[in-house]
Amino acid sequence: MNRWGELWEKSHRDIWTEAALEAIADAQVDRIDALYVGCMSGGLFVGQEHLGAMCADQLGMGPIPGTRVESACASGGLAFRQAWLAVASGAHDVVLASGVEKMTDVDGGAATYALSTAADQEYEGYHGVTFPGLYAMMARAHMKRYGTTRRQMAHVAAKNHAHGLLNPLAQYQGKVTPEQVLESTMVADPLRILDCSPITDGAAAAVLVPLEMARRMEKRHPLVKVAASAHATDTLALHDRADLTWLASTERAAELAYQQAGIDPTKLSFCEVHDCFTISEIMVIEALGLTERGRGGAAAESGMTALGGKIPVNVSGGLKSKGHPVGATGVAQVREAVLQLRGAAGPRQVKNARWGLTQNMGGTGASTVIHIFSQV
Amino acid sequence: MNRWGELWEKSHRDIWTEAALEAIADAQVDRIDALYVGCMSGGLFVGQEHLGAMCADQLGMGPIPGTRVESACASGGLAFRQAWLAVASGAHDVVLASGVEKMTDVDGGAATYALSTAADQEYEGYHGVTFPGLYAMMARAHMKRYGTTRRQMAHVAAKNHAHGLLNPLAQYQGKVTPEQVLESTMVADPLRILDCSPITDGAAAAVLVPLEMARRMEKRHPLVKVAASAHATDTLALHDRADLTWLASTERAAELAYQQAGIDPTKLSFCEVHDCFTISEIMVIEALGLTERGRGGAAAESGMTALGGKIPVNVSGGLKSKGHPVGATGVAQVREAVLQLRGAAGPRQVKNARWGLTQNMGGTGASTVIHIFSQV
Repeated sequence: MNRWGELWEKSHRDIWTEAALEAIADAQVDRIDALYVGCMSGGLFVGQEHLGAMCADQLGMGPIPGTRVESACASGGLAFRQAWLAVASGAHDVVLASGVEKMTDVDGGAATYALSTAADQEYEGYHGVTFPGLYAMMARAHMKRYGTTRRQMAHVAAKNHAHGLLNPLAQYQGKVTPEQVLESTMVADPLRILDCSPITDGAAAAVLVPLEMARRMEKRHPLVKVAASAHATDTLALHDRADLTWLASTERAAELAYQQAGIDPTKLSFCEVHDCFTISEIMVIEALGLTERGRGGAAAESGMTALGGKIPVNVSGGLKSKGHPVGATGVAQVREAVLQLRGAAGPRQVKNARWGLTQNMGGTGASTVIHIFSQV
Repeated sequence: MNRWGELWEKSHRDIWTEAALEAIADAQVDRIDALYVGCMSGGLFVGQEHLGAMCADQLGMGPIPGTRVESACASGGLAFRQAWLAVASGAHDVVLASGVEKMTDVDGGAATYALSTAADQEYEGYHGVTFPGLYAMMARAHMKRYGTTRRQMAHVAAKNHAHGLLNPLAQYQGKVTPEQVLESTMVADPLRILDCSPITDGAAAAVLVPLEMARRMEKRHPLVKVAASAHATDTLALHDRADLTWLASTERAAELAYQQAGIDPTKLSFCEVHDCFTISEIMVIEALGLTERGRGGAAAESGMTALGGKIPVNVSGGLKSKGHPVGATGVAQVREAVLQLRGAAGPRQVKNARWGLTQNMGGTGASTVIHIFSQV
């Protein structure tokens, strides 16, 4: 992945191409048989659809098949999953999984509108609700039912910004205290600006090959295995959910993934999860079974999910500090998992990392894609 | 598929749901394990992305995985291909492939802009070229090199409208003569309005299961087999092509598909191809090897590609008469192939149909998806 941020001097395609070429160089492959690209809204953000063909063309690799997949903010994770299916099925051997979003070429209102298309347009977006508004309702429900506090949410932000300080590619490189979060500008009560992930330009890419082929290749790096891939959905609109405080799609995808990998959550060394808002991380770690239902806020405050804690979450800085170019986020989570399992994460290395999980979510959890990675 | 047209009284999701439920009822399956939906630009046309989750939710079938794929006007064909990969690989058994586009909820200028995002935004769209303009340049080049005439192109339109008269679900149900095409309003010289496919609302869906499972199911219909699936790309921008008169992505995908099916083009009983403009059908039948290079116009004029001719092309009416809701088109081609191979196409039935090919194309041919179907 490249350094994420407001990349005024680089176009959508430039950003993608940088990340793709870096991944290909890192993997030392001499060909790509097919590529998948996750992007939420090339149409609304940069007026460019037809991204599979664009990416193949950017690499000068046409006629290889290039497929764009979309699942809102889970587009990157889903692109990785489709690439994994292509390799695991034997359809292709060397497959590039990638994600990209260039979000800063439109003004703030247009970006907020584009993001709102991840919600239910007819029942939510049309009536003016935005994503901070939707997550604010989930946060209020969680606070009411479980006593989750504003301070606990603030701890999620402080932790992830502290992690981001250790990631030179993160959009934000600044310490944030819980007090600063609590006093920052209100966006949608109870969520303040420092509870929210930012608008970001960025891309990420990874190369997948069959394990047997990887074993035969000359290697610079330890191999990392995809131990599980799972995808689940929930209602598109928040009002259709039985429980506003529970992410059923994440619970379901996690069940499938743990079963596929043959592990339970206690085996995990670290997780990269979808902290688009501070409340999201709290709800996600509950749905993943890292903590009991309703205890996600307490877990964040206790330091359990910080680097050095029992189960480090978002040591990359997460969406909160690393940035959130929506289509790229899921693939960047995979990059972090690979670095950690290679033992190559530098100052943010999780000790004895053996198993890592990535959780990428669309909308208010209407879709979740989970992958589990292990050392070979 | 539902009746296509300007469906003012139905929303994007309603249109999709109608087609999906009809396909499920037709296939007599009691579950769907995963779904794929092709849509070119839910963002620009209706402000709705996150379509995989939306579709699963519409069916009340969450948490099943719903994946949206996009390859401009080839989105439907690509969704079918991903669904096929999911079944062929053993990842899922009962998979819904679908496509949808609701294009008439925006004004004509906005629809033309949305469609232009299938071209190269930075090098083509930004400078104002539209799709009729791009295909007009291809038509001029073909006329100059091969002597293709305006009248030959007009014969493509007349033929496909004659076929559409036999399809009760086609958007247009009117006879068009070559003379009417030649005298219709100019859009982009040499293409006139009756050389162009229309703006359409519509959806289509199909259910795929492993052949062994289909054989065990109680059947109302003869089985149809997917004998080949292929996808190839070309440069996104027209100016990067070595030859404006040749569709290299279609040639490449066809090579792969014929090889996979173990047939050559002489075996085909019929083809459904991407006649977004009359010149497109002429170029496509050349790239598929149905006629010699440069002879596509003569083939159309001779009646070879009409119902009853040597190799009937677009007996459904094609994009030209059936309509072109971009994300749905590729799946509707599959529906036609299935009807023909079942012997259930009524007055437009191709006699002794054994093998059928569908060719779905994005942009000016930057991507092509081809499937070959056979009787079991």
